[in-house]
Amino acid sequence: MTIFTRIINGDIPSYKVAESDRYYAFLDINPLKKGHTLVIPKLPEPEADYIFDLDDETLSGLMVFAKTVAEGIKKATGCKRVGVAVLGMEVNHVHMHLVPLDKETDMLFTNPKLQLPAEEMAAIANSIAQAIYPV
Amino acid sequence: MTIFTRIINGDIPSYKVAESDRYYAFLDINPLKKGHTLVIPKLPEPEADYIFDLDDETLSGLMVFAKTVAEGIKKATGCKRVGVAVLGMEVNHVHMHLVPLDKETDMLFTNPKLQLPAEEMAAIANSIAQAIYPV
Repeated sequence: MTIFTRIINGDIPSYKVAESDRYYAFLDINPLKKGHTLVIPKLPEPEADYIFDLDDETLSGLMVFAKTVAEGIKKATGCKRVGVAVLGMEVNHVHMHLVPLDKETDMLFTNPKLQLPAEEMAAIANSIAQAIYPV
Repeated sequence: MTIFTRIINGDIPSYKVAESDRYYAFLDINPLKKGHTLVIPKLPEPEADYIFDLDDETLSGLMVFAKTVAEGIKKATGCKRVGVAVLGMEVNHVHMHLVPLDKETDMLFTNPKLQLPAEEMAAIANSIAQAIYPV
């Protein structure tokens, strides 16, 4: 079972920003920018670890879910756009990075990662979640 | 009309690797790796330039088309995986980068771009196209 499935199951805590019956989104713990989010599908074991191994329907649903999350990130952070990256060699469970961009170089994975206090991470996750699901 | 629409229309040449009625894929002219491909939707003017402005159905279709192209890239280049990136600040027409990856740093957009002879670009495009549409 991957660390991401354990996050989905609630066995490992995460800063959740959105969830549906099939997908889950939470803050990257080492963000490139405030609001950097990971979007993952809920998958049976052994979890697929390459995005293009997903069936068409799961792949399409992932992208549409990511769109909703990206809209929330944009509203909550005020970024110009949300960039998309799928590299997928570090955790063996399909995941898509959504990164708030003001300029292209904001999504360089060699940039220094931010280390934010837990309270700030929680506040960011909450503001994105609120932007996705306005009260 | 964007440069990408002019490429789709055939007014500007490209190293095409795949085309459907709604999408088009061609080699990035300044590739990070051999086989680096751009996937674009055919769009009415003014062309959408932010991926998450696409309607759900066009967005889903783009991803499923990209999956087919990525399978061809993987077969033709022998890479481990095909990475996905959407930055989209340099050309104002939605486009998705598909980059052959052997390691994560292969998709760093600060890496030096390759300059390949036209014959080699044509041969790469042809080998990917053949892998997508085997005779």
